[in-house]
Amino acid sequence: MPAPRFSHTIEETFAPPVMEARRWLAEATPDPDQPLLNLSQAAPVAPPPRALREAIAEAALTDDAAHLYGPVLGLPDLRDAVAARWTEVYGAPVSPGQVAITSGCNEAFAAAISVTAAPGEEVILPTPWYFNHKMWLDMAGIRARLLPSGDGMLPDPEEAAALIGPDTRAIVLVTPNNPTGAEYPAGLIARFAELARSRGLRLILDETYRDFHSGDGAPHRLFEDPDWGDTVIQLYSFSKVYRLTGHRVGALVAGEPVLAEVEKFLDTVTICPNQLGQRAALYGLRHLSGFVADERAEVLRRRAAMEEGFSALAGWQLLGCGAYFAYLEHPFDSPSDTVAQALLRDKGVLVLPGTMFAPTIAKGGDGSAEAQLRIAFANADLGGIATLFDRLKGFAA
Amino acid sequence: MPAPRFSHTIEETFAPPVMEARRWLAEATPDPDQPLLNLSQAAPVAPPPRALREAIAEAALTDDAAHLYGPVLGLPDLRDAVAARWTEVYGAPVSPGQVAITSGCNEAFAAAISVTAAPGEEVILPTPWYFNHKMWLDMAGIRARLLPSGDGMLPDPEEAAALIGPDTRAIVLVTPNNPTGAEYPAGLIARFAELARSRGLRLILDETYRDFHSGDGAPHRLFEDPDWGDTVIQLYSFSKVYRLTGHRVGALVAGEPVLAEVEKFLDTVTICPNQLGQRAALYGLRHLSGFVADERAEVLRRRAAMEEGFSALAGWQLLGCGAYFAYLEHPFDSPSDTVAQALLRDKGVLVLPGTMFAPTIAKGGDGSAEAQLRIAFANADLGGIATLFDRLKGFAA
Repeated sequence: MPAPRFSHTIEETFAPPVMEARRWLAEATPDPDQPLLNLSQAAPVAPPPRALREAIAEAALTDDAAHLYGPVLGLPDLRDAVAARWTEVYGAPVSPGQVAITSGCNEAFAAAISVTAAPGEEVILPTPWYFNHKMWLDMAGIRARLLPSGDGMLPDPEEAAALIGPDTRAIVLVTPNNPTGAEYPAGLIARFAELARSRGLRLILDETYRDFHSGDGAPHRLFEDPDWGDTVIQLYSFSKVYRLTGHRVGALVAGEPVLAEVEKFLDTVTICPNQLGQRAALYGLRHLSGFVADERAEVLRRRAAMEEGFSALAGWQLLGCGAYFAYLEHPFDSPSDTVAQALLRDKGVLVLPGTMFAPTIAKGGDGSAEAQLRIAFANADLGGIATLFDRLKGFAA
Repeated sequence: MPAPRFSHTIEETFAPPVMEARRWLAEATPDPDQPLLNLSQAAPVAPPPRALREAIAEAALTDDAAHLYGPVLGLPDLRDAVAARWTEVYGAPVSPGQVAITSGCNEAFAAAISVTAAPGEEVILPTPWYFNHKMWLDMAGIRARLLPSGDGMLPDPEEAAALIGPDTRAIVLVTPNNPTGAEYPAGLIARFAELARSRGLRLILDETYRDFHSGDGAPHRLFEDPDWGDTVIQLYSFSKVYRLTGHRVGALVAGEPVLAEVEKFLDTVTICPNQLGQRAALYGLRHLSGFVADERAEVLRRRAAMEEGFSALAGWQLLGCGAYFAYLEHPFDSPSDTVAQALLRDKGVLVLPGTMFAPTIAKGGDGSAEAQLRIAFANADLGGIATLFDRLKGFAA
């Protein structure tokens, strides 16, 4: 008897693109004169501040509950702190009962989809996509209706409306966007919310990179609508802002009836978020506002350096820039995965090709991804960004 | 426009039974003369040993990587240590490339199912079930073909064979079992593996409670078959043995081609297991063998006290006993959820009704669950177990 076959859903799910990039890295020959500039990862590369590390150590030593199961929807103090912060950021009341803590923001997305769409149903997903979103839909047997981003890498609500069919259950937006960096204007987000509400869909709004938004006020006004809980499921991550990627803590903010369904998913998949990571996130919310303000200011300086650098670089076009990412059209005839590999080989710069964020031509794509690259610039300091442009000037694929 | 409806899959998934029990607890009136004896939870109630807590604190302070993303399939040192320990326990080679670390054993189950069965396909699940297993199948749109346990709470491979149809993809076994405590004999496990292999199915073997098995040798011989990786997906938890429930660390052991598919699931749902929990599990594997041996000896003493107590208690029948659990038939005419609530109200003892582990009559059950109760005795010391029997003697529902 041959080995059992795999589920068709997992076989139809592509492999994690980040691992493909790691494979390129493993196969690359290091050049001592040109050290690697790794701009592939949407994650801090430095650990969190000392005071936060000490708070985690203290909890490990003195807080028995930090080692035991806790509530499925998260540590009550952390839910309270999230609700209070959200109320402040969005200028509208969000209650602790509308907050769930998750084992990272990817799990929050999986939970949001699971309560919203069943296998065989559909979700509208702008392209370029965040690849784990597409992977979750594929493995859950849910069809992604793709909505190509237009000018400024913004999706268009009217084009979205034309994609809605009887099996459509939700619209997904990521803002600031991964991979494009685009910050969706509050008015655009409101139009999508109105579309979702008028057609009986959920709006799943992933704000993982919110804390690096260049705007100073609330990034949207959705929570001002007293009925937002019927439509909006918001996702968030503590990973980037407090450098807690290794701790796996995110959040899902939704109406209480939605959370009652989300609770089934979270209980079944991870029982509860890990306790030390939750205490770390709570410490961050309580004590690290100054740190976060400094981090944001630095990211905005790097962003400005990216915009300036590309404005002076012939042939390249900056399609989007914000939060952690710049999204580009390269000037070469080769497809973007070839360009990305050449850039690593010839110039020691690792970035991800657009083909990792959209279907290829063979899979129904329009070919635009072949010309695009994502640069996760937030992990390079200003010196690193200068080095990037030095290397790009002499690069041809 | 009314609020969007939920996915039919999540609506068809029952709410977490443990939370129902917590609700009973919240509504119960505490009796100062009869303190609560909570025998509902399959989890240690004490934190891990001091040395392990110190190791976690040390990692938080000194190991930068303990705060950052790590490999999807887990910390290489931990995968190595699991492989070495498995090779020793099972007397057959298991390699690090066959080990994935997961965010708890529930996630390992979800991953195993996701790579094995697609929505609309089937999995054979013995009853009484571990409720999160049934919940995952329901929310993933996968049909559970139920296999009622027979004498000694053991499932029968011939009855399983009769349930296999064209859409069947896997057989799930839990040993030592939750909720029954039954330790499946190695020969029985081998017969299920042979059935799975001969019919092209996977055998998903959940050994969360392995370290509390009463037998001294390998609990089964499956890893001695050089082709085991084609058929067997084994699941494990670090939560019980090192008291790490709050850290969310489990393992999935399978053939390398299976792990390549599992990696897609884990990357998409949680990106990587949290880093401090992995370091805690590694510390446990390296340094806590003596602690584990003591814990096991104590659990076995408690088990003996349970067997002795029920043999002397008229009317009650012990159906299964082992690892953390005793599974019982109560002598009353009332259904088990009524009995469980009466036991809490009248005697301050919280246990879970059999109806939480099997379909009710209304949902296609045969009614046997109405007469059954699960007692998670491992968290009561010998004094607590004596108290349990004192209270049961005077109890009538």
